[in-house]
Amino acid sequence: MSYTDKMLRDNALQGKTILVTGGGSGLGKSMTKYFMELGANAVITSRNLDKLETTAKELETETGAKCLPLQCDVRHYDQVENMLKKAHETFGEVDVLLNNAAGNFISPTERLSANAFDTIIDIVLKGSKNCTLALGKYWIDKKQTNKTVLNIVTTYAWTGSAYVVPSATAKAGVLAMTRSLAVEWAKYGIRFNAIAPGPFPTKGAWDRLLPGELKDKFDLAKKVPLKRVGDHQELANLAAYLVSDFSHYLNGEVITIDGGEWLKGAGQFNLLEQIPDEMWDMLEAMIKQKKGS
Amino acid sequence: MSYTDKMLRDNALQGKTILVTGGGSGLGKSMTKYFMELGANAVITSRNLDKLETTAKELETETGAKCLPLQCDVRHYDQVENMLKKAHETFGEVDVLLNNAAGNFISPTERLSANAFDTIIDIVLKGSKNCTLALGKYWIDKKQTNKTVLNIVTTYAWTGSAYVVPSATAKAGVLAMTRSLAVEWAKYGIRFNAIAPGPFPTKGAWDRLLPGELKDKFDLAKKVPLKRVGDHQELANLAAYLVSDFSHYLNGEVITIDGGEWLKGAGQFNLLEQIPDEMWDMLEAMIKQKKGS
Amino acid sequence: MSYTDKMLRDNALQGKTILVTGGGSGLGKSMTKYFMELGANAVITSRNLDKLETTAKELETETGAKCLPLQCDVRHYDQVENMLKKAHETFGEVDVLLNNAAGNFISPTERLSANAFDTIIDIVLKGSKNCTLALGKYWIDKKQTNKTVLNIVTTYAWTGSAYVVPSATAKAGVLAMTRSLAVEWAKYGIRFNAIAPGPFPTKGAWDRLLPGELKDKFDLAKKVPLKRVGDHQELANLAAYLVSDFSHYLNGEVITIDGGEWLKGAGQFNLLEQIPDEMWDMLEAMIKQKKGS
Amino acid sequence: MSYTDKMLRDNALQGKTILVTGGGSGLGKSMTKYFMELGANAVITSRNLDKLETTAKELETETGAKCLPLQCDVRHYDQVENMLKKAHETFGEVDVLLNNAAGNFISPTERLSANAFDTIIDIVLKGSKNCTLALGKYWIDKKQTNKTVLNIVTTYAWTGSAYVVPSATAKAGVLAMTRSLAVEWAKYGIRFNAIAPGPFPTKGAWDRLLPGELKDKFDLAKKVPLKRVGDHQELANLAAYLVSDFSHYLNGEVITIDGGEWLKGAGQFNLLEQIPDEMWDMLEAMIKQKKGS
Repeated sequence: MSYTDKMLRDNALQGKTILVTGGGSGLGKSMTKYFMELGANAVITSRNLDKLETTAKELETETGAKCLPLQCDVRHYDQVENMLKKAHETFGEVDVLLNNAAGNFISPTERLSANAFDTIIDIVLKGSKNCTLALGKYWIDKKQTNKTVLNIVTTYAWTGSAYVVPSATAKAGVLAMTRSLAVEWAKYGIRFNAIAPGPFPTKGAWDRLLPGELKDKFDLAKKVPLKRVGDHQELANLAAYLVSDFSHYLNGEVITIDGGEWLKGAGQFNLLEQIPDEMWDMLEAMIKQKKGS
Repeated sequence: MSYTDKMLRDNALQGKTILVTGGGSGLGKSMTKYFMELGANAVITSRNLDKLETTAKELETETGAKCLPLQCDVRHYDQVENMLKKAHETFGEVDVLLNNAAGNFISPTERLSANAFDTIIDIVLKGSKNCTLALGKYWIDKKQTNKTVLNIVTTYAWTGSAYVVPSATAKAGVLAMTRSLAVEWAKYGIRFNAIAPGPFPTKGAWDRLLPGELKDKFDLAKKVPLKRVGDHQELANLAAYLVSDFSHYLNGEVITIDGGEWLKGAGQFNLLEQIPDEMWDMLEAMIKQKKGS
Repeated sequence: MSYTDKMLRDNALQGKTILVTGGGSGLGKSMTKYFMELGANAVITSRNLDKLETTAKELETETGAKCLPLQCDVRHYDQVENMLKKAHETFGEVDVLLNNAAGNFISPTERLSANAFDTIIDIVLKGSKNCTLALGKYWIDKKQTNKTVLNIVTTYAWTGSAYVVPSATAKAGVLAMTRSLAVEWAKYGIRFNAIAPGPFPTKGAWDRLLPGELKDKFDLAKKVPLKRVGDHQELANLAAYLVSDFSHYLNGEVITIDGGEWLKGAGQFNLLEQIPDEMWDMLEAMIKQKKGS
Repeated sequence: MSYTDKMLRDNALQGKTILVTGGGSGLGKSMTKYFMELGANAVITSRNLDKLETTAKELETETGAKCLPLQCDVRHYDQVENMLKKAHETFGEVDVLLNNAAGNFISPTERLSANAFDTIIDIVLKGSKNCTLALGKYWIDKKQTNKTVLNIVTTYAWTGSAYVVPSATAKAGVLAMTRSLAVEWAKYGIRFNAIAPGPFPTKGAWDRLLPGELKDKFDLAKKVPLKRVGDHQELANLAAYLVSDFSHYLNGEVITIDGGEWLKGAGQFNLLEQIPDEMWDMLEAMIKQKKGS
C-alpha cells in the first residue's frame, strides 16, 4: 500500500449525505470525490455556481454517486438556510457537514484595512458558524441523530501566525467552536472534529497566495520533516475516516496532518539539523559531559 | 505579604498612558485603578459615558493620577479611530492597550440566533481587532516603540466550553491574534500578551450571567483546587506586571490565573478526590500492585 | 457501518512486521489481532511468557497470520536488544514499533514511595525509550526506511492528573519523545505518532485499578459526552491507520480518542448541562442581554 | 523602569525560606540572589560543595540575608532527605522549593547510549520528583501550609525538540507533575507552577552545550522576535513573583519567558518576514483578492 492509495473498505460511507462548503475545487473537491467513491451523496456549495455545476457533473461521472451543487455565500445566514432547504428536499437528510470554505490574505497586518480583516472573519468564522448553527438547529429540532461536523482549520489556529492574522483568528474561533459543541451537542447525537492540514498545494489557492518566484523561495516542503507536501488522497483518507462511523469515539479532536511541519519550527533545537555528521563526531567528546546539577 | 497586597515597586508604571476598553466597571476598573496607583495615566472606554465619567472622577480622586473617559463602541472602527484621536490629543502617546471589553451569553447554543452569536464575535473579536489595528497602525506609522497590548481571554479559548460558545470562538480568535502579532509586530517594538482569568466575580457581570439560586448551585469556587475565587488585586498585580517593562521578555504568552480550575476539570482521575482517606487505606494493599507490562 | 466494524481495506498491512509491547492482553492484544487480520506479522512482548504464548496461538488460529511471543522486561536495555535480535531472526525486518506496555498506580501521591514512583517511570518512559532507541539505532544503522513508531499515551500527558502522577509524568515524557523524534529522525524515514485513549475498559487492567464498588461510583462513561466507553475495535481501527502507510503524512501527532472526555471536564461552563430545559426557558429572557462593554 | 530593574516591592519574600536546587551557579544563583534581596533565606544545593560554599558567602555578603549551602545529588532520595533534614534544622521551615537542577546533552539521539539517556531522566525528572515528594510528604505530615513549588522547564516540554531528546522527555514529565500536583495537593495548601525560559545565556552551561563557532552560527537571539536573549533579572523577577504570595491564584500554570521564540518557529507563515517592504508593495495588488469560498 502507498499513501496515495485509498484507505477505507468499500461502501464505508454508503447511505450518508455529506455537505461540503467550498466543495467546488481544490481540497474540498478532492475530499468530496472520495466520499462519493465510498458511496456517499454529496452537496457542494460555493459562491460560484458555474464551477460547482461543472464539478458536480465531473464527480458524478467519475464516481456514479450523486452530487448536488448549490450556490451559497456562507456569510449570509438566510442563504445558508435556503441552501439547506434545497439539500433536504433532494436528499431527505444531511448526515455530515464539512466546513471547508475559507478565505485568506497573505499580507503584513498593518497593511490590512479593518474591512479586509472582517471579510476573512465573516467567511471563515461566521460562515462556519452559520452552517453549523442552521444545520444543528435542524438536526436538534427534527431529533435526527448520529450526525457529525468536520471543520478544516490550520496549525496556526493554536500557534498563531504572522502575515495571515485574519485567518489565524478566524480558524482559532472555528477550533474553539469544534471543542465547545463537541461537548454541548453530544447529547443530541452530534459529533464535532477538525483537521489541521499542512501544505497540500492546490491550483487556484496556493498559487494565488504566493506568486511565482516567492513560491520557490518559500518552498513549504522544506519546512516539513518529511521533505514533501501532502497528497490530496492523504487528506481525503483522513477526512473520510472522520466523517464515517468508524471515528465515532473521536469527538472534539483536531488532527494535524502536516508531516510534522509545525513541530519542526516549534522545537528550540531543531535547527541543529544543519550540523553535519563530521562536526557531531568532533563535538561528541566535548559535549558528552553532563551539564551540572 | 498577602495576595490581596499590591505587588510592584512604587512608580512602576510612571510615565505610561494605558488605554483600557471596558474600563468603567468590574475588572477593567480594578486594573485601571492599580495602574494609576503605580503612576500611569489612564484612558477608559465603553459605550456608557455616564458610568465612565463617574469612574474616572472616582479613580482620579483615589489615586491622584489622570483618567480620561471616552465613549466608544469598539465594534465600529471609526469610533475607535475617533477615540484614539482624543486620547492622543490629551496624552500625546498611548503606551499600552488593554483589550478588556467583552460580551457574553450563557445559553444553550441551539437557542441562539445567528445575530446574537454575531454580536459577541463583533464585540469581543472584532472589537479587540479594531483597537489593536487602529492603534498598531498609528504606532507603526509614527515609529513609536516599546508599546504593548494585553488581551483578556479565558481558559475556554483553548478548551472550548458549552453554553458560552460565541464567547469561546471570539476569545480563541483574540488569543490567536495575540500570538500572531507577538511575532509579526515585534520588529516594530510592540509586544502582545494575554491573561486567562478564572472566576473573579464582579457585581454587574457575573450577577447578570447567573441569577440567584443558580449561582449557588454552580458555585465556581468549588471547581477551583484552591477552593476560592480570585481577588481583583491578584488580577491587577498580574496585569500591571504584563503592561510594565518588567515583563519585556514575555511575548505571545497567555497566563492563566484561575487557581488551577481548568486543570482540575481536565485531568482524568481528578474526580478521585472524593475518595475518603479511610478508603485509600483499604485500597492501598490492593492497589499497590503494578499493572503488568 | 458501525463503529464496531473493521475499517481498513483488506491487506492494508500486508508485508509489515509489527512489534507490540504489552501485546499479550488487553488493548495491546486487540490491536495486534486487527493488525494480523490486515495481513501483518506480529511480535508481542511482555514479562509473562506463558500469557504471551497462549495469546500468540490464539491470534494465529483466529487470523492465519504469524505471531511471535517474546519475553522482555522493557526496563532493561539488554533484554530489549535480545528481544529485537530474535524478532529480526524470525522476520528479517521489523517495520512498526507500538509502545503499549505500561504500568500505573492509582494512589494519593503522598502515599507513594520514591521507589514505587520510579518503577512507573522505568516501565513507561524508560521502557518506551529503550525500545525506541534500540530499534531506531538498528533501523538507522541498517538504512532501513519507511518505519514508524506508535506510542500509547493518555490525555493526562498534557493536562496532568491527580492520583496517577507517576504515570502522568512518564506518559508526558513519551509524548515529548514522540514529537522530538518525529522531527529528528524523519530524515531517516522514521515517523512517530501517538494515541491518547480515553476509557477503553479491559479485564485485567481497569479491574485492578479500581475495585468493585468504586468502579460503579466513578463510572468513567459518565464523564464522556457520548455517555459510553470505547470499543476495542475503535482503538484498533485508529491504531491500524496510524501504523499503515495511509497515515504517512501524520508525523509527531497525538490523536485523542476519548469521546470528548477531557474537553468535557476542561471547559469552564460545561457543568451547566445540569440545568434542565424548563429552567433555560425561564432564564432566556433574563439572560439574553449583553454583558456590557 | 527597565526590564533589568528589580520588580517587586521591598521585603516581598521576607520570612520565607527558599530551597533552590542547582542554586550554586547560573540562573539558579541569579534567582537565589534576588530572593535574598527581597528578604528570603536561601538553601542552595548541588553536587559541588565548594562552588556552593563560595556562592553562599558571596550572596550573603551582597544581600545581608542567609544562604545555606548543602551538597546533594538529587538523583538519590536518601540524599534529598538528608539535605532537607539539615535545611529544617537551620531554618525550621522550608516554604518554597525551586526545582532548577538540570542536565542536558546536545546530540543526535542515535548517538546516545541508553545509559546517557537515563542519566538525564534521573537528574531532571527523578531529581525533581525526589525533592518534591520528600518535601511534600514532610509538609503534609507536619500540616504546614501556604507552600509552593516552582519548576524550571522549557518550551520543548510541549513541542518536543530534536537533539535534546532526553531533556525534552524529562522536562515534559516535570511539567505533567506540576499540573498533576497543583490539583492534587491544593487541599494541603501547596501550589505548583513552572517557568519555561527561552535563551538566557549563562557561562558554564550554554558555553558547554555549544562551543565557539557553533554558538555564533546558531545564535539563538536570531530566533527570538525581540532579537535579544533574556537578562537574568527578567527571569528572577518572574520567579520571585511565582514564589511569592502575590501569585497565590496561579496554580498549575507554566509561564513562558522567551521573547516569543517558540511561537516564531511554530507559526506557518512567520518565515515571510524575509520578504522586503518593496516586494509587499508589488504583491499588494495581486494578493488582496480573496481566496474563494
